[in-house]
Amino acid sequence: MADRIQGNDADCACKEGMFPQRRRFLFGAGTAAALAASRRAEATPNVPPDPTRVQGRATGTDGGYGARSPFETAHRILGPVPNSQTTWTFTPLADQIGNTTASGLHYERHHAGIPAIDPDRHSLTVHGLVNEPKRFTMADLKRLPRVSKRHFIECSGNTGGAYQNLPMKTVQVSHGLLSTSEWTGVPFAVLAREVGIAPNAAWVLAEGADAAVMTRSIPMEKMMRDAILAYGQNGEAIRPEQGYPLRLLLPGFEGNTHIKWLRRLQVSDKPFMTREETSKYTDLMADGIARQFVFTMEAKSIITFPSGEMKLPGPGFYEISGLAWSGRGRVKTVQVSIDGGAAWHEAALNETPQPMCTVRFTLPWRWDGKPVNLQSRCIDETGYVQPTHADLLRARGVNFYYHYNAIYPWTIAADGSVTHVAA
Amino acid sequence: MADRIQGNDADCACKEGMFPQRRRFLFGAGTAAALAASRRAEATPNVPPDPTRVQGRATGTDGGYGARSPFETAHRILGPVPNSQTTWTFTPLADQIGNTTASGLHYERHHAGIPAIDPDRHSLTVHGLVNEPKRFTMADLKRLPRVSKRHFIECSGNTGGAYQNLPMKTVQVSHGLLSTSEWTGVPFAVLAREVGIAPNAAWVLAEGADAAVMTRSIPMEKMMRDAILAYGQNGEAIRPEQGYPLRLLLPGFEGNTHIKWLRRLQVSDKPFMTREETSKYTDLMADGIARQFVFTMEAKSIITFPSGEMKLPGPGFYEISGLAWSGRGRVKTVQVSIDGGAAWHEAALNETPQPMCTVRFTLPWRWDGKPVNLQSRCIDETGYVQPTHADLLRARGVNFYYHYNAIYPWTIAADGSVTHVAA
Repeated sequence: MADRIQGNDADCACKEGMFPQRRRFLFGAGTAAALAASRRAEATPNVPPDPTRVQGRATGTDGGYGARSPFETAHRILGPVPNSQTTWTFTPLADQIGNTTASGLHYERHHAGIPAIDPDRHSLTVHGLVNEPKRFTMADLKRLPRVSKRHFIECSGNTGGAYQNLPMKTVQVSHGLLSTSEWTGVPFAVLAREVGIAPNAAWVLAEGADAAVMTRSIPMEKMMRDAILAYGQNGEAIRPEQGYPLRLLLPGFEGNTHIKWLRRLQVSDKPFMTREETSKYTDLMADGIARQFVFTMEAKSIITFPSGEMKLPGPGFYEISGLAWSGRGRVKTVQVSIDGGAAWHEAALNETPQPMCTVRFTLPWRWDGKPVNLQSRCIDETGYVQPTHADLLRARGVNFYYHYNAIYPWTIAADGSVTHVAA
Repeated sequence: MADRIQGNDADCACKEGMFPQRRRFLFGAGTAAALAASRRAEATPNVPPDPTRVQGRATGTDGGYGARSPFETAHRILGPVPNSQTTWTFTPLADQIGNTTASGLHYERHHAGIPAIDPDRHSLTVHGLVNEPKRFTMADLKRLPRVSKRHFIECSGNTGGAYQNLPMKTVQVSHGLLSTSEWTGVPFAVLAREVGIAPNAAWVLAEGADAAVMTRSIPMEKMMRDAILAYGQNGEAIRPEQGYPLRLLLPGFEGNTHIKWLRRLQVSDKPFMTREETSKYTDLMADGIARQFVFTMEAKSIITFPSGEMKLPGPGFYEISGLAWSGRGRVKTVQVSIDGGAAWHEAALNETPQPMCTVRFTLPWRWDGKPVNLQSRCIDETGYVQPTHADLLRARGVNFYYHYNAIYPWTIAADGSVTHVAA
């Protein structure tokens, strides 16, 4: 791609004392409580003063399917579009612990609400340029060989407001159209052997069973490489909001192509020019020409702690933490700056990065109480470096809305309050 | 350990046609429906005849936290102990898709029910042979460096009935005291630096805040190596049944040592000889001597499909699938036999195995309709081979109840019905 931007070489020299490694992280007991206090307020369920003095809730009273603690209130929030069938919700990334998104908190983007589907009456038809068109019931699909992979899905509109410097005060609103799950299903390559793909096949139309009959054209090369007909999410059936009972999973591609409630795949020699690839989900460049079929989500990262609208209780030790990902493969390294991008320090990655999957990064840090500007940037295995806001706009202009992946700084004031200040 | 049993070298010669690789898996549409049909019956929620003709459920009507489809009914089932405060529930392993256990389906073992705990009033005290005893609030703990790791937890009593050939008809009952999650929390090694461990420290007492005040003694070496004070599970706060707000995570150790609702760690130079390591959770050998502090869960595997009480609809292609794990490190390889253990075939592992974590294995298989005996065995990175039932009993006698890890065969009759027949 023409606008892939390379950053400067990293300056990873560590300032002594600023990045504690194997020392003590001492702080006064209770000083961190302010961080958590703002999350509460709503309901405070009844609890005994001493839980060891009373028998606990009886086992099995939950019907055999557990729920989270009533003290936990993290939730998805609705996007600003008033029609609640055609809108989205944001994952509460500041509350996400670890790398996986809890299924109940996976972001949503619906074009006609969430259809109610009986899996025994649902099927997937594969037809078009194939030797033998076929209809697969869910039971048929579940008999075929399956794979399980952890992948992120990111909406192409995630962080899109940043092109125009729209206010996005929390990381939930700025980056919450991103979630990560373990997905399980049948590789498309297995289905392709069942139906036989014609030699001139080049594109596949994927169609959903929602009232929008959502459709996208996908290159056959991608379908054969790693597309999954997914029916499992995080160990159980895929959630209704994520396409129950069947979703097209296209690792690294923009979220709208991962067609939910998938019912039909039509093989063709050319793309279908559907509404979602002509009227929507195209990228208008500065010269007035729109780019079409820009599928891949470029490398990106975001610091989730500290992040917007948090307030640090005072100077001392903190672990800077965030998520990094790339639609082109594995994250290679993540760098963090605490001085507005002048010097970059290599963050620790919590695990070996998986292809097209988020990875949690951390950097131990001792805040001296002075105002700072925190930034992170992702470098993926192709060598691509997450660009600055200015560099991204230089390459793409301001007619853009989708595929915003620039560095997103957080400023910490002397009073500990965290805000995003546009670069 | 004296009773670690080595198996024979694997005979992995594949019989042609029996293990299809890159061919078509054709079968008649709908023939697999019988497999799914038995799961239904309960409620059949109302759905429109054609979901594309009506607007779907409005976004955000779930309070910002989603639930599974009403068509999904997999659930934990209660153990046979009548007191519902002191019992357990089994994870429905036959319904588990992929490698992760859905948090709502994680197995349970409670000694005094599930306590209701306000996380803002919960704390962890670390004292005993330390330089500076300390009390950590949950907010304190969340400020410290954290790690996220995927690990299994297995109850030491899992599959224990097999010692006496007790009837365990489904894989849920025979192996369902096993679950896998992504766990997040503070390494104990970080806390150890905060309090300073005395040179003669050798054991740590871990104590829960439930009405059983559950306690176990843990070797300091294990605590320093990889113990985690876990507050996160699968991306969100740890579930109430799993110890909300804090659990001790001891990768590879038997489940009862992973103290839930953790409130106290006392450092000592010797073990504490608590009820759960004297009266319970010891292994009575054939000679009448009991082994104590047998912590590590040895390598084990189980075929989850096909498994007990399923019925194959007829001859044809099936993907044999199951889970393998070892408390001593990574799974190295999994072998499957379709002839009662005479010949062994190497299964595919779905991903690079992680230490002390389950891995999903699969083997494509074409059933000819004749009776077969299916078995799997796990070989871990230490070279340990999962033993047969006979070999295990030869080493341990029949006074045992805990730590049963032998091969668990499934027999498929000519009519497709699957049963466990004791070896």
